[in-house]
Amino acid sequence: MADYSVTLEAMLKTLLEEKKYSTLKDVLITMNPADVALAFEEIDDERIPLMFRLLPKDMAAETFVEMDPDLQELLIKGFSDYELREVVDELAADDAADLIEEMPANVVKRVLSSVDPDFRKQINDILRYPEDSAGSIMTTEYVTLREDMTVEDAIAKIRRVALDKETVYTLYVTDRRTLVGIVSLKDLLLVSNDSTLIGDIMDTNFICVNTQDDSEEVSQKLKRYNFLALPVVDNENRMVGIVTFDDAMDVIEEGATEDIEIMAGMTPSGGKTYYRSTPFDLFKQRIPWLMLLMISATFTGMIINHFESALATQVVLTAFIPMLMDTGGNSGSQSSVTVIRALSLDELEFEDLPVVIWKEIRTSVLCGVCLAAACFVKIMLIDRMLLGNTDVTIPVAAVVCATLAVTVLLAKTIGCTLPMIAKKLGFDPAVMASPFITTAVDALSLLVYFRISTALLFR
Amino acid sequence: MADYSVTLEAMLKTLLEEKKYSTLKDVLITMNPADVALAFEEIDDERIPLMFRLLPKDMAAETFVEMDPDLQELLIKGFSDYELREVVDELAADDAADLIEEMPANVVKRVLSSVDPDFRKQINDILRYPEDSAGSIMTTEYVTLREDMTVEDAIAKIRRVALDKETVYTLYVTDRRTLVGIVSLKDLLLVSNDSTLIGDIMDTNFICVNTQDDSEEVSQKLKRYNFLALPVVDNENRMVGIVTFDDAMDVIEEGATEDIEIMAGMTPSGGKTYYRSTPFDLFKQRIPWLMLLMISATFTGMIINHFESALATQVVLTAFIPMLMDTGGNSGSQSSVTVIRALSLDELEFEDLPVVIWKEIRTSVLCGVCLAAACFVKIMLIDRMLLGNTDVTIPVAAVVCATLAVTVLLAKTIGCTLPMIAKKLGFDPAVMASPFITTAVDALSLLVYFRISTALLFR
Repeated sequence: MADYSVTLEAMLKTLLEEKKYSTLKDVLITMNPADVALAFEEIDDERIPLMFRLLPKDMAAETFVEMDPDLQELLIKGFSDYELREVVDELAADDAADLIEEMPANVVKRVLSSVDPDFRKQINDILRYPEDSAGSIMTTEYVTLREDMTVEDAIAKIRRVALDKETVYTLYVTDRRTLVGIVSLKDLLLVSNDSTLIGDIMDTNFICVNTQDDSEEVSQKLKRYNFLALPVVDNENRMVGIVTFDDAMDVIEEGATEDIEIMAGMTPSGGKTYYRSTPFDLFKQRIPWLMLLMISATFTGMIINHFESALATQVVLTAFIPMLMDTGGNSGSQSSVTVIRALSLDELEFEDLPVVIWKEIRTSVLCGVCLAAACFVKIMLIDRMLLGNTDVTIPVAAVVCATLAVTVLLAKTIGCTLPMIAKKLGFDPAVMASPFITTAVDALSLLVYFRISTALLFR
Repeated sequence: MADYSVTLEAMLKTLLEEKKYSTLKDVLITMNPADVALAFEEIDDERIPLMFRLLPKDMAAETFVEMDPDLQELLIKGFSDYELREVVDELAADDAADLIEEMPANVVKRVLSSVDPDFRKQINDILRYPEDSAGSIMTTEYVTLREDMTVEDAIAKIRRVALDKETVYTLYVTDRRTLVGIVSLKDLLLVSNDSTLIGDIMDTNFICVNTQDDSEEVSQKLKRYNFLALPVVDNENRMVGIVTFDDAMDVIEEGATEDIEIMAGMTPSGGKTYYRSTPFDLFKQRIPWLMLLMISATFTGMIINHFESALATQVVLTAFIPMLMDTGGNSGSQSSVTVIRALSLDELEFEDLPVVIWKEIRTSVLCGVCLAAACFVKIMLIDRMLLGNTDVTIPVAAVVCATLAVTVLLAKTIGCTLPMIAKKLGFDPAVMASPFITTAVDALSLLVYFRISTALLFR
């Protein structure tokens, strides 16, 4: 699979098969937990618990977090109650909540009953938030300070609690749980006088997000400002957690994958890797759109049937149908995909619709004229002269090229408009990408084709 | 545009128009540089230098970095030599290098001559690295320690140099410029004894990358391990810089955008926002593929021409061409896009090709059988009974459905194979996405269609 484990893979397998456990342990300790997790994917299921037990306690938990849900479930089922508690206790609250969301009910019950009540409450607090909300990706392990602390007090507190906190590099100043300021550890170190008050150096002009905010928007915000973490507050403005850059990076990448999947006419895989997806998983992801689009193609069929008698007299027109439909589909998906991405990255809003349409119209005139001219030359040189098809007359070429130009214009205008309307109506704009636009543009381009040919050829 | 500036936009404009500069300055100071940069995009060009001069020195540089290259150029052209030096001196070396890569030659000359020789050398060092290499995105501003330093010495050094360094949270232990270990500021704080030696607490089992490594792979690596920064070494193993998480996030997001653009048949925009792209920019991005695909559609035309006489006797077959081609295209792009994304995320390698093909074959059998059955029912119920098209006989329906199933199988097999071969040959797999696959599958599905109908209908 990925670059690191390739060479190690064989070595780990050999050590495992030859039962050289102490060497195996020594090797695993030198590796990064993310790589160890990757290595586990290549091992036979029955050997996984054995290899996992070789890991030292803290490394075991870090490796466990990075594993695929399937493997996590397999391990949990094999754990004794004691082992389970050891691993789960080492997890951060947000990771434990993620784990619980992925596991079947009986496993969830065992996990929750294995942890102490305080930690269970923290996990449940995170689980309360809707999926895709800032609350669901935040961690509750951050360091708070008070305004009346001195820099010395603050550093002492950080040293005391650092071990259990996800980050100590951004510190949150609270007053009865309300966030009043932010100070970075770098700022603390830059203060030369240890008795300076936190209240005097903290930044009160900070950005925070609400637990209910969309996790992808929150992650984009963190990225835009290059923050290490963003504080999360509840509706009463009390600080309840932080979203860290690593979780934000995951959300942004998953968001891009989801956009790409939806744009290609699939339901999102929800983070399951291709490697772990069964053919039936892939089937379920892909069949809905294929079915829908197959049935909606009835319209294009109806249009062709309607012009059946005309087509029978000028079969040469049929030969250009694929080219016209494909060029229309490609033009449309270029525009829709560009607009969908700009919407995802917060570069465009619905209010920009007139600007976007006007830009796409000018672009499609450029593309349309250019394509029509090239197409005319191509038809005359290749289809008529080179292939010697005498049915391809100048009027036929003119009909094809005029249809091409009009189709590009229609496709680009529809392609840019539909995603923006979808966003305005609260749908995912990515749904309005290639397959959908293609079907709409197919029907339209055929109508234009037959309309223009009726006017020019069948008078 | 984006969420933050919407409400502020009007206010800033009013303040600027009414020449309330001191209020405007007070407002701008409360804002985040990324938001100020966004606000500049909405201001008339001639007022931009005026508003920029209101910003305090350090904020001016931070805002400048976040701006669009067009605006940066506009500002530099308006700067006095003194102003230019003030802004550029405040930039980090990697940001200055980025700026220089975007500017036209005459501006580059002015920028480089305005900075002091030391800084110019740093910038040039970064510029030496190929585009898309780790060297080109790294920063040279990191903190180094020595093994024989005590924790106390180390913290003292950090406090002394922190102001000029991009990050102080990961510290690099070097021995005559060779990287020998890594220690985090958190680890330093957790050590209770100030006289502990750095050599005793540093992590010698670290991950580093080479200046020549691909910037996207480096960014993925940083993301995989949840690091704040990754050290970059040259071919002699000397440490020369670090790649930080914020730059890595940008690279990952730009990589996703680039993949999406290429998959939709466009040449990448190179980070230029839709808002700033002119219709001619968009035209240049889009016309090459449209042209190529329009011309390659000659093949589909030739196939149809070849079967012209058969089609003339059974025009009803024509009506199903769009449906067959679209379903084939959609099936193929589903597979290709899934595989391209998995390749981008390092989840698949060329060696996995047999696994992938076998998985896609099973998936396409599921999809193909399901679609063919549904299509048969649809043709009989809608086309024959509801629309009363008596040309649609059971043999015709059988031909269409058999073609559909074969097309899905071919489309998915080609769709998953081409991107992996492209990757193996050193091309960008994204090129092998929808438009390309659609054209290949169109021709194949028509051949299958006519072959099957010749066998079943035209005997």
